Formats: sequence, C-alpha cells, structure tokens
Amino acid sequence: MFSDLENKIKSAIRDVPNFPKPGILFKDITPIMLDAVLMDEIAEAIVLQFKEAKIDAVAGIESRGYLFGVLIAQKLKVPFIMIRKEGKLPAKTIKQSYDLEYGTATIEVHDDAIVTNSNVLIHDDLLATGGTAVAAAKLIQQKANVVGFSFVIELAFLNGANLLQNINKNVQSLITYS
Amino acid sequence: MFSDLENKIKSAIRDVPNFPKPGILFKDITPIMLDAVLMDEIAEAIVLQFKEAKIDAVAGIESRGYLFGVLIAQKLKVPFIMIRKEGKLPAKTIKQSYDLEYGTATIEVHDDAIVTNSNVLIHDDLLATGGTAVAAAKLIQQKANVVGFSFVIELAFLNGANLLQNINKNVQSLITYS
Repeated sequence: MFSDLENKIKSAIRDVPNFPKPGILFKDITPIMLDAVLMDEIAEAIVLQFKEAKIDAVAGIESRGYLFGVLIAQKLKVPFIMIRKEGKLPAKTIKQSYDLEYGTATIEVHDDAIVTNSNVLIHDDLLATGGTAVAAAKLIQQKANVVGFSFVIELAFLNGANLLQNINKNVQSLITYS
Repeated sequence: MFSDLENKIKSAIRDVPNFPKPGILFKDITPIMLDAVLMDEIAEAIVLQFKEAKIDAVAGIESRGYLFGVLIAQKLKVPFIMIRKEGKLPAKTIKQSYDLEYGTATIEVHDDAIVTNSNVLIHDDLLATGGTAVAAAKLIQQKANVVGFSFVIELAFLNGANLLQNINKNVQSLITYS
C-alpha cells in the first residue's frame, strides 16, 4: 500500500543488538525523527489507514507514542489523550494494570480526558507482544470505545496483533518485521 | 504579544494543589492537548517567537517536551531531537548529569542525532528552576549551539530564566506566572 514509504521507514530505522537486554534486536525509531519530511509522510499515511474510521480522539502511550500521536491528532483536528505511567498525571485518573515478564505495571489517563462513549484511536510507535496496547485499550474501554490501534512498526513474530484484534479488528502498522 | 492566546492557555491549564508533593501548586497542561485548535495556535506562536533565530533542529525534553517539540519541529521542517532519561536510548549517546533536590539525574541524547556546530532550539512544556533545561543545554553544547529556549509556561518566581540567559538570552515562554 505504501511501498515507497515502507522502504524509507525501514532505511531510517536502526537495529541495535542486545538492547534493552541480551538477545533482543531493538528497532530504534529515533532516526526517523531527524527527517521532517518522513515524519510528515508517516503521520499522513496513518491518517489514511484510518480514513474509514470515526475517530473522536487519539490516545498516545508514553512516551514514544506521543511523537506521532500528537501529529495524527493534529491532522485529524481531534483531542490528544496522554496515557502515562502511574503517578505522573496530577488530577483524577482511571488506571489499568497489566502483567510484565516480571511483576506488573500500571498506566493511567485523566478521567476527564476521555469523553464517555467517544471513539478513541490508540497509537504507539511499536507493537511487540501487545501487552501495553491491550492495557491501554482496557483503560479507554472503562469509559469509551476503541476504534482501532495504530503503530509505526509491528514485530509480527510476537503475534501482538492477534490479541488486539479481539478488541478491535482495525489494527494497522506501516511496516512489519516477520 | 499574544494576549488572546495567553488567556486561552491560562483558561485551559488546570491548577492541581499538592502535586507532586504537599505545598506545590502543579500547572497541568494536559487539558490543552484536548483542544486541537489551541495546540496548533501554541505551536504557531512559538515558531513566531523564534522567527529571527536560525534553527537547525528542535530538541525536546522527555516526555512533555515531546508534545509541542514535535509540532514546532514539523512547522519549521527541521529534525526533532529526543532528549531522554538515562538508559532509554539504545545506540551511542552523550550524557549530562545534574543535581536534583536530593541526588542527581542524567539525561541523554543519541550522539548522531546532533549535527556538529548546528543550531538547536531547546523546548520543554514548563520552566521552573531551570535545572533540567540547563542540563539539556550543556548536553547540546557538547557538540552544537543552543540558539534559544522555548517553554509554554514559565514559573517566573523560581527565576529559571536567569540561569538560562547565561547560556543564551533568547528564553521565551507563552505564559508566565509571577
């Protein structure tokens, strides 16, 4: 669908071996941010992926989900909802905990940032196992609807999309590593 | 200069008492992010504040500095440099430590994200004591020049701007609390 763009993104992404721990090949998106034209093309392409969806707000997951999340929200002219790690949002929040490899984590959103029964697109830079995105979806679903999931990169071999499709079939990424 | 805009921003900001600790009145910018028009107006106004500056890149401080930092970089069509907390950037970094009230903190940037001798605008959402912004400036100055500092909010009673003006006189905020 966006084969030229896919090639540009793949060329920009840097593989970093053994980060954050031995055996992991980390996909580093930070070089993308140094190319202003590519950044805009990515945000445009994501908007196009969801052109059939009714999106009332974009929720970005801290902190790399803010990078394109804000740009997508601006292009759609809709609110940007900040999903943050626990303890960082000052006003009344709703929370969602989820399991990590060791222990649990909690994410939060301001209660009044989510309009009841509105349609929210969840965005993050990368889909791995899907654990964080599922938690983000459950968080949003405490008050509203999840209309889809947007990622720049999908690590398809971790099967995260399968989990997300149980929530909403509209799971989109711009590039996939299988 | 932007008095209508100032009023809109001040109306959107939420005061949260006793966050993150007793006695602090926290200025919460998250409601701004729910107003797509206001977000764009803020980014436009910041670009206008620096229209005389030669800006090669915008550096945003994790994570609220990403929100408008990305928008400003996109409007200027220049790279966005991610300044992160220690340990989050996967490739070769340069680091800068700074003192906190108790202990120290370290911020990092990818070494190859900064072009040698380029002119970098540092952005964060809020200027308080200036400690983090000074550290960000020292980090950038390891390779490049700081052409100015941009904030949405300045807490003038903490005198952070004085510290920053020793580095570059061009310290701008959109709204000030005195």
